[in-house]
Amino acid sequence: MTLLKGLEGADLGQRTPLAEVLDALPYNQQGLIAAIAQDAVSKDVLMLGWMDRTAIERTLEEGQVWYYSRSRQTYWRKGETSGHTQSLVDMRFDCDGDALLVTVQQTGPACHTNRPNCFYLLVDGDEVVVYSAPDA
Amino acid sequence: MTLLKGLEGADLGQRTPLAEVLDALPYNQQGLIAAIAQDAVSKDVLMLGWMDRTAIERTLEEGQVWYYSRSRQTYWRKGETSGHTQSLVDMRFDCDGDALLVTVQQTGPACHTNRPNCFYLLVDGDEVVVYSAPDA
Repeated sequence: MTLLKGLEGADLGQRTPLAEVLDALPYNQQGLIAAIAQDAVSKDVLMLGWMDRTAIERTLEEGQVWYYSRSRQTYWRKGETSGHTQSLVDMRFDCDGDALLVTVQQTGPACHTNRPNCFYLLVDGDEVVVYSAPDA
Repeated sequence: MTLLKGLEGADLGQRTPLAEVLDALPYNQQGLIAAIAQDAVSKDVLMLGWMDRTAIERTLEEGQVWYYSRSRQTYWRKGETSGHTQSLVDMRFDCDGDALLVTVQQTGPACHTNRPNCFYLLVDGDEVVVYSAPDA
């Protein structure tokens, strides 16, 4: 049985070394895991990024969220150019380890379009409507 | 310029035919997009699944959330065996179209482990702690 499968039936409060969990995560062919960022205050889902093991470890060490850019093939600390940083509140893995959720204190807009979050294209019947405006 | 890139600067309320957006989404090599499910009431992030275009269209047509199972290589309507269905409240795409967010009315626990959501493995220092118990 894999580590994560074993934890499915684990009691509340059971503890496992972080390193063992990081060893057991089913990274995809690019070595990545989907990372959902959620605002700690509003609970809005801000964005979906990607992390590899190094990005996860940097995020935990620094308390600032790091992602891995698939297009640029490099690490980036959220906000390193925009100033719109994400301070880590907590990090959780899901049952099968192919996704993680970071709860963050978001500074400024989370989306590179200067909107509060990236999910601004709302389906409305057979159309998609732009649902939020960039911050002024 | 791609459709989604063009929408980054679009005014609030601008409308685009859904079919054009579905044509423009950057499906991965398996034809899939990451789909985040969020509880409409608690705003908790419930799970991350995967959808292809068919799963997106079925979800919108039926108002019940459908995913594509990568391990079983088949469509599944959330709750079809467990009864723990997800009724669609709304669906939003993100700025670059590689993720979507479904807001849902969740019936029962969202996780197959019978926990309220899938993100029950909380990082605590150099350990991971089981953070929620399965429903009795």
